[in-house]
Amino acid sequence: MSDPDNLETGIRLSPNFDANGLITAIVSEAGTGEPLMVAYMNQEALSLSLQTGEAHFYSRSRQEIWHKGATSGNVLTITQMRIDCDQDAIWVEATLSGHGAACHTGRKSCFYRRITNNGKLELTGDSPMFDPKVVYG
Amino acid sequence: MSDPDNLETGIRLSPNFDANGLITAIVSEAGTGEPLMVAYMNQEALSLSLQTGEAHFYSRSRQEIWHKGATSGNVLTITQMRIDCDQDAIWVEATLSGHGAACHTGRKSCFYRRITNNGKLELTGDSPMFDPKVVYG
Repeated sequence: MSDPDNLETGIRLSPNFDANGLITAIVSEAGTGEPLMVAYMNQEALSLSLQTGEAHFYSRSRQEIWHKGATSGNVLTITQMRIDCDQDAIWVEATLSGHGAACHTGRKSCFYRRITNNGKLELTGDSPMFDPKVVYG
Repeated sequence: MSDPDNLETGIRLSPNFDANGLITAIVSEAGTGEPLMVAYMNQEALSLSLQTGEAHFYSRSRQEIWHKGATSGNVLTITQMRIDCDQDAIWVEATLSGHGAACHTGRKSCFYRRITNNGKLELTGDSPMFDPKVVYG
């Protein structure tokens, strides 16, 4: 039998928070698998996400808990959460609500630019689904 | 016309490397959208990834460039790379080769454990596709 406390094979949740108390969280859309955004959670954000079923992060710029969608209405409803082998990254699978956009620019995904082989960017054509100026004021 | 140098809407690649010169890279499988792993790139790893079409990272533990799959054969062939709105995260979409596994434990994905509502982990049932002891020695 494997050790339930083993970091990589066990069943004990033991997030490896960094020096700032944060863990990387990647968010993808349930169903499509499309990557939506990358953010960070502290212990409180992780606990709130588990308790409420809605994604909470820690905003490094505002230095506070960030209930995603509280302002914009674009809440991320969690369908499942997973943690990786060495427990230093969390994957949040979620459905979009509100405008159907996860990015603060109004687009569905934050990953709306492709990196070309010559090191430039090209827009994928994803258009904003809301006007940030109106939504965020 | 939008400013081509604008961080969020422009076409200039301007990765926001952190204090250690690294940027978070998330990897998902082309076709399925399944998240495979999270790693970090420095400028050299990013350049090598673009030049070769195979994912290169920076190993924080070994403090060196990490050509993913060089030892195990599980190379990640890049189908596209994107960068997020504020250019501090990169998404690598790739196909698996070798054993068809991205995780050093031998599993396809590093995200083989689900976080339950009561804060424990449950294995999703993904089995190792190679024996790490044999492959890594």
